[in-house]
Amino acid sequence: MTQTFDIAVIGATGTVGETLVQILEELDFPVGTLHLLASSESAGASVPFRGKNVRVREVDEFDFSKVQLAFFAAGPAVTLSFAPRATAAGCSLIDLSGALPAEQAPQVVPEANAHVLDGLRKPFQVGSPSPCATHLAVVLAPLRGLLGIQRVSVTASLAVSAQGREAVSELARQTAELLNVRPLEPKFFDRQMAFNLLAQVGTPDAQGHTALEKRLVHELRVLLDLPLLKISATCVQAPVFFGDSLSVSLQLAGPVDLGAVNRVLESAPGIELVEEGDYPTAVGDAVGQDVVYVGRVRAGIDDPAELNLWLTSDNVRKGAALNAVQLAQLLIKDLA
Amino acid sequence: MTQTFDIAVIGATGTVGETLVQILEELDFPVGTLHLLASSESAGASVPFRGKNVRVREVDEFDFSKVQLAFFAAGPAVTLSFAPRATAAGCSLIDLSGALPAEQAPQVVPEANAHVLDGLRKPFQVGSPSPCATHLAVVLAPLRGLLGIQRVSVTASLAVSAQGREAVSELARQTAELLNVRPLEPKFFDRQMAFNLLAQVGTPDAQGHTALEKRLVHELRVLLDLPLLKISATCVQAPVFFGDSLSVSLQLAGPVDLGAVNRVLESAPGIELVEEGDYPTAVGDAVGQDVVYVGRVRAGIDDPAELNLWLTSDNVRKGAALNAVQLAQLLIKDLA
Ligand SMILES: NC(=O)c1ccc[n+]([C@@H]2O[C@H](COP(=O)([O-])OP(=O)(O)OC[C@H]3O[C@@H](n4cnc5c(N)ncnc54)[C@H](OP(=O)(O)O)[C@@H]3O)[C@@H](O)[C@H]2O)c1
Ligand SMILES: NC(=O)c1ccc[n+]([C@@H]2O[C@H](COP(=O)([O-])OP(=O)(O)OC[C@H]3O[C@@H](n4cnc5c(N)ncnc54)[C@H](OP(=O)(O)O)[C@@H]3O)[C@@H](O)[C@H]2O)c1
Repeated sequence: MTQTFDIAVIGATGTVGETLVQILEELDFPVGTLHLLASSESAGASVPFRGKNVRVREVDEFDFSKVQLAFFAAGPAVTLSFAPRATAAGCSLIDLSGALPAEQAPQVVPEANAHVLDGLRKPFQVGSPSPCATHLAVVLAPLRGLLGIQRVSVTASLAVSAQGREAVSELARQTAELLNVRPLEPKFFDRQMAFNLLAQVGTPDAQGHTALEKRLVHELRVLLDLPLLKISATCVQAPVFFGDSLSVSLQLAGPVDLGAVNRVLESAPGIELVEEGDYPTAVGDAVGQDVVYVGRVRAGIDDPAELNLWLTSDNVRKGAALNAVQLAQLLIKDLA
Repeated sequence: MTQTFDIAVIGATGTVGETLVQILEELDFPVGTLHLLASSESAGASVPFRGKNVRVREVDEFDFSKVQLAFFAAGPAVTLSFAPRATAAGCSLIDLSGALPAEQAPQVVPEANAHVLDGLRKPFQVGSPSPCATHLAVVLAPLRGLLGIQRVSVTASLAVSAQGREAVSELARQTAELLNVRPLEPKFFDRQMAFNLLAQVGTPDAQGHTALEKRLVHELRVLLDLPLLKISATCVQAPVFFGDSLSVSLQLAGPVDLGAVNRVLESAPGIELVEEGDYPTAVGDAVGQDVVYVGRVRAGIDDPAELNLWLTSDNVRKGAALNAVQLAQLLIKDLA
C-alpha cells in the first residue's frame, strides 16, 4: 500500500480550485482524505472527486492539523489570514495567490528552479508563480544556457479567466448583449471587454506599472536565476475565455542558432514545439493541456541576435493548478 | 467658386472604399464628379455621397482620363493591373494596397514625412502605408528628435476588418455559433477566431516573418527616416471587429524624460494622449475617430532608458482611408 496524504484545497469552488481537484484525480495523487474549503457562500455545495461528491466547508472553521498539505487558491486575503494558522498546525502549504513574501514561500516552477525545494524545511511553504512567469520560465529555463539572454520584451494577452469566475461570466454576457444588439452594461470590467482589448489588468502604480507586470518581472528573474535580466512587460486583457498568449522578443548576446533553439525546445519537458510555419493558439491547442505551446520561432527581420517566440498555455492548468500539484509531487517524498 | 477635382475610388464597395467616400464628404473635399468602381460583382450597386446615390461601375471599363485622381483600395492585384493605365492617362493616384514599389509610389504619412510629396511630379503616385506603420509613425515622428530611439519592439493586435468584409462577417458568424453551442465551421480564418488570438496574419516566409511584419518594419524606417532602426514586429489577429491595438516598447540612448514625452504627445497633430492612469481601447475610443490614441506612457520597471506605450487607432480611418484623403488634400494644390 502506498502512503497517502490528507489534503485541503482552499478556494475549491473557484476556477483554479476546481481544476486543482480534477488534476489531483487525473495525476493519481496519493490523496487520503480531501477537504474542500471555501467561503460561507459555497459551504454545503459539493464537488466531484474520484466518483464521489465531496462537501465544501467553510475555511474559517477548518482545523489545519487534520491535513499534511493545503493548497491556497482563494485570493491573497485568504492566504494572509489562514496561512499562519496552517503553518502553526504543522501543515505544509502551496500558495497560488502570490500573497506570501519570497523569503517565506519561494516561487517555484519545477522545470526551472526545482532545486529551491531542497533547501526548505517542514512545514513547507511554496508559491506557484503567476501564469505568465510560469509559462515564460518553462520555455526560457532550458534555453538560458544556450542563449546569452540580455533582454526580454513580452506582451501577454490574458484570458478573462485569469480574473476568476465572474470575469468569465461577464465576457459571455457582454458578447451575447452585443450580438443581440442590447445595450451593453459593463460590470466586472469597467468597459466593453467583448470584441475589445484592455491595455492593463488591474490599476497601475504611480510609475504606470500594474502589480501583475511587476510580479511577472520579479518572478521571472527569480525563476531563471537571472537577477539582472532586463524585462519589459505589458499585460493586456483579451476577449478570450481560457488560455494566455505571449508575444516574446529576446535580445541575445550574439547571433541566434535557430537549429539549436529548436532542438532544445523539442526535448525540454513541459513544452510542445509546433511545426515550422504552423502556430499554436490558446483555444485550439493550449486549453485543457499540460504543456506550454511554442511557435513562430524566428530571428529578427534583420537582427540575427534577436529571437522571437509565441507562447500559448492554459492559465488555469500549468499557469496555476497543474504547477501547484507538480510542486506537491516533488514535496511528498518529504511530507510524511 | 473653388476648383473641384474629378475623382475615382476603386474598391468603393469595400471596407476601406466605403469609408473613403464618407471621409471625402466629411472633410468637404472639393470633389467634382465622383466615380465609384469595383468588380463586376458589385457593378450596379450604389453608394451614398452628399445625399445622392452614386452608381458603382466596373473598373475594367473605366476611362482614367476622366479623373485627375484615383484612390486604389481594391487589393494589390487590382492596383498592379490598373495603376499603369491610370498613370498613362495622366491621372494621379494614391494606392492603399501596398502593391507599388517605393521608388514608384513613396509611402507617406503627413504627420511624419509630408516633405516627400514636394519632390514628386505629375501624375503623382503615392502610397498610404499599412495601418500599423501609419499609427506608429504618427506617434514616433514627433518624438524622434527628443528620444534617441535605438530599438522598437511592437506587438500589434489587429482587428479582423484589416482583412476586409469577409473577415468581419466570419468573426460575427463564429461568435454566434459558439454562443449558440452550434458546431464551429471556420471558413475565412483557418481556425477558431472568436474568443481566440491568432499568432500571425498571412503566411510567414522561410525565415518566419509575414509580409505584413516586413512591410511594417520597412515602412516605419522610411516614414521616420531612420533606415537603420532596429524593429521587432509581431502582428497578431485579435477577435476585434475594428481598431488596432499596439503594445510598443522603445529602447532609448539614455533615460527617458517622461514629462517631455507627454508634452510632445499632447501638442503633436493627429494624437490624443489619454490621462495618466487611464488607457484607450480600440472600441471605446479609437473606432470612428481620426486620431491615434496613446496611453500607458511609462518607463521600464527598472530601466529608465525604456519607454513603453499603448496605441489604439481606427485601422480603416487613419490606418487607410483618412490618411489617403489627407494625402490628397496635400496634393491638390498641385493637381489642377
Ligand atoms: N484564474 C487563474 O488563471 C489564476 C492563475 C494563477 C493564480 N490564480 C490565483 O488563484 C486564486 C483564485 O483564483 P480563481 O481564478 O480561482 O478565482 P475565482 O474563480 O473567483 O474563485 C475564488 C475562490 O476563492 C474562494 N473564496 C473567495 N473568498 C473567500 C473567503 N473569504 N474565504 C474562503 N474562500 C474564499 C471562492 O469560494 P466561494 O465559492 O465561497 O466564493 C472560490 O472558491 C487567486 O489568488 C488568483 O490570483 C488564478
Ligand atoms: N481593411 C483595412 O483595415 C485596410 C487598411 C489599409 C489598407 N487596406 C488595403 O485596402 C485594400 C482593400 O481592403 P478592404 O479591407 O477594403 O477589402 P474588402 O472589404 O474585402 O473590399 C474589397 C474591395 O475591392 C473590390 N475588388 C475586389 N476585387 C476586385 C477586382 N478584381 N476589380 C475591382 N475591384 C475589386 C471589391 O469590390 P466588389 O464589391 O466588386 O467585390 C471591394 O470594393 C486592400 O489592398 C487592403 O490590404 C485595408
